[in-house]
Amino acid sequence: MFEPSKNHQTVFFKNKPRIISNYSMVGPLESKGVLKDYFDYVLKKDTFKEKSFELAERKMLEHIIFGAIDKANLKVEDIDAMLSGDLLNQIVSSSFTARKMGLTFIGLYSACATMAESLALGACLVDRKVFDKVVCATASHFSSAERQYRFPLELGNQRPPTSQWTVTGGGASILSLTGKGPYISSATFGRVIDFGIKDVNNMGAAMAPAAMDTIMTHLKATNTTVDDYDMIATGDLGKLGSEILTDLLERKGIKLRQNYSDCGNLIYTKQGKTFMGGSGSGCSASVFNSYIMHKLNSGEFKKVLLVATGALLSTTTSQQGDSIPGIAHAVTVEVDDLKEK
Amino acid sequence: MFEPSKNHQTVFFKNKPRIISNYSMVGPLESKGVLKDYFDYVLKKDTFKEKSFELAERKMLEHIIFGAIDKANLKVEDIDAMLSGDLLNQIVSSSFTARKMGLTFIGLYSACATMAESLALGACLVDRKVFDKVVCATASHFSSAERQYRFPLELGNQRPPTSQWTVTGGGASILSLTGKGPYISSATFGRVIDFGIKDVNNMGAAMAPAAMDTIMTHLKATNTTVDDYDMIATGDLGKLGSEILTDLLERKGIKLRQNYSDCGNLIYTKQGKTFMGGSGSGCSASVFNSYIMHKLNSGEFKKVLLVATGALLSTTTSQQGDSIPGIAHAVTVEVDDLKEK
Repeated sequence: MFEPSKNHQTVFFKNKPRIISNYSMVGPLESKGVLKDYFDYVLKKDTFKEKSFELAERKMLEHIIFGAIDKANLKVEDIDAMLSGDLLNQIVSSSFTARKMGLTFIGLYSACATMAESLALGACLVDRKVFDKVVCATASHFSSAERQYRFPLELGNQRPPTSQWTVTGGGASILSLTGKGPYISSATFGRVIDFGIKDVNNMGAAMAPAAMDTIMTHLKATNTTVDDYDMIATGDLGKLGSEILTDLLERKGIKLRQNYSDCGNLIYTKQGKTFMGGSGSGCSASVFNSYIMHKLNSGEFKKVLLVATGALLSTTTSQQGDSIPGIAHAVTVEVDDLKEK
Repeated sequence: MFEPSKNHQTVFFKNKPRIISNYSMVGPLESKGVLKDYFDYVLKKDTFKEKSFELAERKMLEHIIFGAIDKANLKVEDIDAMLSGDLLNQIVSSSFTARKMGLTFIGLYSACATMAESLALGACLVDRKVFDKVVCATASHFSSAERQYRFPLELGNQRPPTSQWTVTGGGASILSLTGKGPYISSATFGRVIDFGIKDVNNMGAAMAPAAMDTIMTHLKATNTTVDDYDMIATGDLGKLGSEILTDLLERKGIKLRQNYSDCGNLIYTKQGKTFMGGSGSGCSASVFNSYIMHKLNSGEFKKVLLVATGALLSTTTSQQGDSIPGIAHAVTVEVDDLKEK
């Protein structure tokens, strides 16, 4: 399980599927961190004028996808397919958003790794000319996730110090071969890795081995080292999880440097009640589609490796005593070398 | 919403991605119908020697995928990726199966339309040479679905006469450009369609409009009529849902004939307590990977349109008063014309 897989996990894209538009949205707590100036839209209240947190999450995803389409001066009809999933049971935020927007819908689920799964699959479909334009998106909401996965907020449960905070936020990217923007040069689809962690309040530890596996496979397949990237960003390992990843990779002879960050560490500046940092499918989705895409679009970053991480548990598997399997999907996003032009 | 979409929903496959192997499994009740001789494996007891129905469902999916790989004389390492989803929250049957088998995992969710979603997406990835071999699979279990979506069986609730019976069963198909077998010539990814049905015990009515939408779009895009197919099989509309579909299409000038069947109608011969027939992601998966594939492999069927249907609800959306959106994904499966050879 520690050796890079012999399977054909990594896909290369010769036609440069470009991220021609992207949009990000976060809630009030997320807007107080260092990334605050990078988000397209900040909610003043996390209910978003809806009657339930689930409806607020759905409205966020609608707003995010429409925002990405609008920013590209496109119409909904210009989008061939929506690739999306979310943390709610039966990915209802995504399917109800697809219903409202009338989009062809390819429902996905990789827990908090869904943004990278959608980008990787979207890049396959656009690069190989299955579709002209696809929108890849996800969102999550702290309060709907707490209610579904843990306890309703009204119960006032305490959270242990290893826990993370589901990001209220999300992001969308539109991929196309025509248009301007950074392009996805390769993607690695993850395997499901499980080191036997059973503590549902320690997701970082559960997901770190999957991140290690995917990073090792991706570096080997693309013949790159960690130094070839301006940024390597994991999805939502949080403080503890990213330390575990750093240790795991170091034992394999791969030393992560200053260019390594975790979206869950970046999004909340004052850790406080967010403890180990952000999590949720909206974590990497909002950070990638704001800060990371901004740095790529400005040319400050030339090459980024996004490794979104997901914990593939359910409340039922935990209640029945199963451990927590993790998965990580990775995409390399690059900007054109100006010297080439 | 009634007009075929302007979006690029239909994809054509020039390289003939072939179904080189398939496997099906059903539970005791499903093995008593007219299709009984077509299934690869029949469970004597639906617990499959496991301690919970959820574990039984997971074991079924493992067995099914391994069965398809074994039938093709392949090893697990020969499969590049597993495209799978299921009805349990967070698609845990699929992700835990991917963990056990060590397969690269692309998690999908289209409710009971997941088999067709996986075949359509698998055909895209194999036809466009992203992967050499993928396995497309899903399974469902009556008792785990009842517990999660409705009531635990121990409660002894009565079921209304419009209700359907989640199939304990599933199926897997291996797609590849090399090997023998029927090929997928085109696929139509569905849109999310909602006619406002709120009765969670009448899924056929909720899904029929999506089936209509996808069938109309597919026939138009492929320039075919219903008479061009030896069989048009919807996934799990059941008795009432398929009557509604027949009516809806007739109003649009499309008359379904003897070649139309619904997998949910086929699987249970004595309707009895199964009322309107079978449902669940395992319904179309088990019928397609047994009876339909058998007829294609024997040459009795030359061209089949599989239109798997899914209801994209969750218990939360129903409790919050939402209606039930439906989706249908379609694949045309053909056998080589012997005259061509």
